[in-house]
Amino acid sequence: MNATFSPGLEGVVAAQTRLSSVDGLAGELIIAGFPLEELADKATFEETVYLLWNDALPNAKQLADFKSNLAAYRAIPSITLDVLREAAKQRLDVMDALRMAASTISLNLSGETDDDLRDAYALVASFPTIVAAYWRLLNGQQPLEPRANLSHAANYLYMLTGETPTPERVRGLETYLNTVTDHGLNASTFTARVIISTGSDLVSAVVGAVGALKGPLHGGAPGPALDMVFEIGEATNAEPYLRAKLGRGELLMGFGHRVYKVRDPRADVLAQAAEKLFTSGGDMALYELVQHVEKTAVRLLEEYKPGRKLQTNVEFYTALLLHGLGLPTDLFSPTFAISRAAGWIAHCFEQQSANRIIRPQSVYTGTKDRQWVAVEKR
Amino acid sequence: MNATFSPGLEGVVAAQTRLSSVDGLAGELIIAGFPLEELADKATFEETVYLLWNDALPNAKQLADFKSNLAAYRAIPSITLDVLREAAKQRLDVMDALRMAASTISLNLSGETDDDLRDAYALVASFPTIVAAYWRLLNGQQPLEPRANLSHAANYLYMLTGETPTPERVRGLETYLNTVTDHGLNASTFTARVIISTGSDLVSAVVGAVGALKGPLHGGAPGPALDMVFEIGEATNAEPYLRAKLGRGELLMGFGHRVYKVRDPRADVLAQAAEKLFTSGGDMALYELVQHVEKTAVRLLEEYKPGRKLQTNVEFYTALLLHGLGLPTDLFSPTFAISRAAGWIAHCFEQQSANRIIRPQSVYTGTKDRQWVAVEKR
Repeated sequence: MNATFSPGLEGVVAAQTRLSSVDGLAGELIIAGFPLEELADKATFEETVYLLWNDALPNAKQLADFKSNLAAYRAIPSITLDVLREAAKQRLDVMDALRMAASTISLNLSGETDDDLRDAYALVASFPTIVAAYWRLLNGQQPLEPRANLSHAANYLYMLTGETPTPERVRGLETYLNTVTDHGLNASTFTARVIISTGSDLVSAVVGAVGALKGPLHGGAPGPALDMVFEIGEATNAEPYLRAKLGRGELLMGFGHRVYKVRDPRADVLAQAAEKLFTSGGDMALYELVQHVEKTAVRLLEEYKPGRKLQTNVEFYTALLLHGLGLPTDLFSPTFAISRAAGWIAHCFEQQSANRIIRPQSVYTGTKDRQWVAVEKR
Repeated sequence: MNATFSPGLEGVVAAQTRLSSVDGLAGELIIAGFPLEELADKATFEETVYLLWNDALPNAKQLADFKSNLAAYRAIPSITLDVLREAAKQRLDVMDALRMAASTISLNLSGETDDDLRDAYALVASFPTIVAAYWRLLNGQQPLEPRANLSHAANYLYMLTGETPTPERVRGLETYLNTVTDHGLNASTFTARVIISTGSDLVSAVVGAVGALKGPLHGGAPGPALDMVFEIGEATNAEPYLRAKLGRGELLMGFGHRVYKVRDPRADVLAQAAEKLFTSGGDMALYELVQHVEKTAVRLLEEYKPGRKLQTNVEFYTALLLHGLGLPTDLFSPTFAISRAAGWIAHCFEQQSANRIIRPQSVYTGTKDRQWVAVEKR
């Protein structure tokens, strides 16, 4: 056996997928056959989920059925709410609460047989309910019942605020959800595939993926990019602020990506969505400040780190768009999970369709031939 | 990039580890420097856990502290018990219940700072409490409070039955727990490493691993091997029964392993432990029947599948030993998890000590350049 150790499995191919293609050098992202730009601001989130799970867009009848099936699973078990109440008392991180609650979703699904599609509906449908309920509990408010007559995205915004959102806000959220729903074999998606490869169930796979997404190295934490913009405050401060930061050797949050060496295509899509949303009644001064900060940052990064090609990544405009939708930074990662859950499940379906248990090797680097010594003699 | 797709990551090295070495051709298993045979029937489970986490056996003072720290975390949050009650009402699988309950263990651990060692104690300590409580609830009994004056293994048997176990039964269980606590990069251990590699927490990693262990392809399901022995019933039936089964092309549960091509070293250790346990007051006729079935099966496998080297694996004697301890087959996988949790955590510590996010690649096999068509025109 000639196996060599590849830390982080960098460069190792662990799956063939029709779900998404990430070309970091060309700055291209394909979602289930669609260039991101062709899909993100046109599809409802339900259409995108259907597309990922079925490799085709639904016709009107299929879409109506899909929406109604999904909406039917929005309610969460009462014990799940009890868990969230207890977690809120202890002020647990939203991602921890989501992981706990998601793991209990099997309770809604007792039946004679395993039914993966039912589990898939229940997982995707319950995530907004869990996150919104937990957020309200953290803020001393009572959770709201889901409304079946609203779309997935609209109902999430409604359950957070108690207000029926405008079409512009729903469109902004759907564009975000479509944009981040799948992105090759990131660590959380890979986690889901490893778990399902053992023949385990979708709830187990998705709960594991939530745990992986929680990690700060996963890259799902766009909060700090926006914090930087707020600290800058106005356009004339941007250059001195960024020069000071770069001079101290600090990273600029929202710039640079392990894969993309040109501008992350998701950044463009989200920047346009943010522009539409802010134009329709948001804080245009903030939008313009963000654009100025971005341009200044990219220029200074080339000056301070020439050749490194540190470009705007998805986090930068995610932060602006979600802020424009009224979401606090603590909800950025959970909202990312609401979208990515559909991608995780699509990868699970794909793994199941040509499964082989994912079980790499380890190399032993420890000692051998230790001998037992009784505790009295140690 | 010249990466090739390796289904299941077979032959790919994803970690260097000092925790265990599996030599399938030689039939050797090393646990933290000890040949399995040197450790399994001598160490208490607490000593083995300490060894895995610290790469050395504890002295008397260290062991006393470790046992007392671990015992302090045996109680589970009351909301966790509520979740188990609800799961028991719905007759959920024990592994599902364990996954749900384990995910809520973060509730016991609220504090100002992350503390991995505290999480590690709480996870290992709470698993027996969760499993025993759930088992009693499933059987219409009230859960029992843990007893801090019993060892980890003894307390588990006590919480299941309400009886203080004999030293022989405790020894039998500890030998089992020591034997299966780590085994290279199996799928659940790998899951834990992927999750922790994102910078996530131990509870998330262990919950993901429970989900992977649940899968039937993981190989943690020794129940069917014993069912076969019970169906055989007496020694004279063994050969005709096994010939009929092999003639129909069926697999013999308890024989064959992806890695081991000689007798699984764990089978020997567990066979000896079973012999001791049964000799001290068990069903010796069953023990002898099992031995006869094993010899017959290995002989017939060589006849029906020459050259395949299908040898007795860990499941065969696991089933006998756990049955001798009074555990029903539904508790075999959860008891495996009680042991393996210590190994998962050891791998997490190791991953953290030289971390790199585990993020392999995928290759895109889908179509490109799809164009949007409005739903009315589909």
